[in-house]
Amino acid sequence: MEAPLRVGLAGLGTVGSAVAGMLLRTRDKLAVRAGRPIDLVAVASKDPPRDQSLDLSQIRTADPVALAKGSGIDVFVELMGGSGDPAKAAVEAALGIGRPVVTANKALIAKHGTPLIKLAEKNNAAFNFEAAVGGGIPVIKTLREGLGGAEISRVYGILNGTCNYILTQMQKEGRSFEDCLKEAQKLGYAEADPTFDIGGFDTAHKIAILASLAFGAEVDADAVYVEGIQSITLADLEAADDLGYRVKLLGVAVKTETGVEQRVHPTMVPKGSVIGEIDGVTNAVAINSDALDLTLVGPGAGGAATASAVVADLVDLASGRRVAPFGRGAAKLTKAVRAPMLEHEGGYYVRLAAVDKPGTAATIAGRMAEQGISLESIVQHRRDKKKSSDAPAPVVLITYGTNEDAMRNALNAIKKDGVLAENPQVIRIEKN
Amino acid sequence: MEAPLRVGLAGLGTVGSAVAGMLLRTRDKLAVRAGRPIDLVAVASKDPPRDQSLDLSQIRTADPVALAKGSGIDVFVELMGGSGDPAKAAVEAALGIGRPVVTANKALIAKHGTPLIKLAEKNNAAFNFEAAVGGGIPVIKTLREGLGGAEISRVYGILNGTCNYILTQMQKEGRSFEDCLKEAQKLGYAEADPTFDIGGFDTAHKIAILASLAFGAEVDADAVYVEGIQSITLADLEAADDLGYRVKLLGVAVKTETGVEQRVHPTMVPKGSVIGEIDGVTNAVAINSDALDLTLVGPGAGGAATASAVVADLVDLASGRRVAPFGRGAAKLTKAVRAPMLEHEGGYYVRLAAVDKPGTAATIAGRMAEQGISLESIVQHRRDKKKSSDAPAPVVLITYGTNEDAMRNALNAIKKDGVLAENPQVIRIEKN
Repeated sequence: MEAPLRVGLAGLGTVGSAVAGMLLRTRDKLAVRAGRPIDLVAVASKDPPRDQSLDLSQIRTADPVALAKGSGIDVFVELMGGSGDPAKAAVEAALGIGRPVVTANKALIAKHGTPLIKLAEKNNAAFNFEAAVGGGIPVIKTLREGLGGAEISRVYGILNGTCNYILTQMQKEGRSFEDCLKEAQKLGYAEADPTFDIGGFDTAHKIAILASLAFGAEVDADAVYVEGIQSITLADLEAADDLGYRVKLLGVAVKTETGVEQRVHPTMVPKGSVIGEIDGVTNAVAINSDALDLTLVGPGAGGAATASAVVADLVDLASGRRVAPFGRGAAKLTKAVRAPMLEHEGGYYVRLAAVDKPGTAATIAGRMAEQGISLESIVQHRRDKKKSSDAPAPVVLITYGTNEDAMRNALNAIKKDGVLAENPQVIRIEKN
Repeated sequence: MEAPLRVGLAGLGTVGSAVAGMLLRTRDKLAVRAGRPIDLVAVASKDPPRDQSLDLSQIRTADPVALAKGSGIDVFVELMGGSGDPAKAAVEAALGIGRPVVTANKALIAKHGTPLIKLAEKNNAAFNFEAAVGGGIPVIKTLREGLGGAEISRVYGILNGTCNYILTQMQKEGRSFEDCLKEAQKLGYAEADPTFDIGGFDTAHKIAILASLAFGAEVDADAVYVEGIQSITLADLEAADDLGYRVKLLGVAVKTETGVEQRVHPTMVPKGSVIGEIDGVTNAVAINSDALDLTLVGPGAGGAATASAVVADLVDLASGRRVAPFGRGAAKLTKAVRAPMLEHEGGYYVRLAAVDKPGTAATIAGRMAEQGISLESIVQHRRDKKKSSDAPAPVVLITYGTNEDAMRNALNAIKKDGVLAENPQVIRIEKN
């Protein structure tokens, strides 16, 4: 049996504690898989582990950067999170001396991925981050190693459990967004400040990483168009259900004629499709290619699930399996051309609160027609009986494939026509 | 750039042609991923490639064994299929001289996996078979490398597209088994002799391989209990639908208190579950562990999809990534204790054609009670009006968790009581 792989781990929150626990608990089994033991020899954390059953007092220090570059470890595991210091400084310190790094830090990879992998490559250090996207789902390994010569055309999915939990609860229980958000916070699925999740920013980091892997391009999180789920109402979920759809917050990266389109927004997906039926905090990633379509479903967060991805990265390292972080050398990553959101093509769901006067429907349909937008369906719902007779009448449109620019022009024209009582709700439709 | 990896490929059927085509078509891209070119330098096949647009006449020979052990190649790719010669002889010839082998041959791995990996290990040759299970779905990589320290408790799934196509068509279109089988044959989804697929034997090979990977045990295809789908009728699918289930042919490998249970049989799975909603030729594999539950969905067959798995194995080899075929050294694989089918525990669906006389229901219920079997529901369907008034009355039972032995004893007793007009139909229920 070879010498152990000595692990130094920074961060003892939910994931860090779970990784420490898994390394200690399954040491014998991991040694069989890796061909050598994987030993946790040092941890850096100001606080003791969140999992209080772990006694790490003998190996705990406070300074992650000192741990990352200090002697006595063979690999540095960064589980502090955040795109700034100390996570960034610690990862740079380790890679800078050629020490392998494993991290679950999506923000760090999304924002600083390219310089970090260049640093890793320069110093011949492995840099693995399976846990950064999709928690325990091995989506990074699948995109990086699992698809042979397949030419990927699109990768998309439910990448944020908080949002999917809220949308599922709204849909299943007929409760409001605010109500379901509060429940998610109570259950620990959402942060006290939920903006990062519900605003779509967490999903944006993740889809930027997946896009890089799928298309062999430098990660470019700034190129992601982002909308959150705050505007989704029960009326939308009910209309979607009537029309055969579910509403999901998707991250989507797709190759278009002009470049790579990266976007995060609430999306109509068909009921009965795998993605459409994913409920609660579960995540799912779909990959389309010329050779096959794959969908991976699993937990996108949680200590044990995320730990299994971190430990899988460590087993790869201990076994001597190396792969370039994004599946190819840094010099071989392209700078993808950003496909502008205005050129996005697809169908749209539009919910309008139309003022109830003669000619309104004709005005709306006319403005759509001016932009060359064909309507697949137009449903005028009965006015809420409790409201006065001149309350706005909800109109729901489903369009055939069109583009974002035409849709925005049509809606701006309709707004100027003065036939809307509220801003229109627009949800893009994603085909299977 | 390093020297090319020179590939010798035996078998030019659907998969072999697709692999040859992918290697030629995506050579530049694969070189970027692998860090070196992957060159197809020789093929062995009596016939020209099924894909007639490929011109391989310059590199085609007839003898796969000579190719496997001859000079001028760095890796042998076996895509002839079948557990006997020439596939076995060719793989042995290559491994015997320390030459890496990639194969999609599930029968070969299921029947001769252990001696072959020992031969590979002895001669320090890599031996990869991602395409042997689940076609393009990277389930072998996931089980072997993707799950860190997770302790797997069960792996199961839809592993045969032919069966799932037939069951889907029966259910959706209300057509008979025979009718849907004929259609599958016409579409090329089923062989002229369909026994291997519809009898469950193909699924048995695949679940035996997955069980080995999941539980670190030597592959033992003889230990798989096998039932096919031939006995499934429209009445079963309709009753299942009423009760909230779908009927799928599953391969299941589960750790029990006494050992490893491996079984293939038609199975009731909940409607709305990921597995329950997989239609047509698509495959899906679910993995349960202490750390996470994963489901992978994709094409289980087809040239391009299967080729992508074969080529992924080649990219791993070309990149110098090595992993033991079953995730650990041959000496570390256990001999799993076979958990007897009679000890299988779970719920059951039972459809009985009861003779219509007083006391029949009481007799049936009594025999179940004698064996300690609790009934969750018992539905007596109306007799078919077109039939005579003493035609058998269909009775459908759903039991709570019990075991196979009790169920068989109860049914034997009921048969002896003379209250059945036909043999009972029994379908096991698999929990999510």
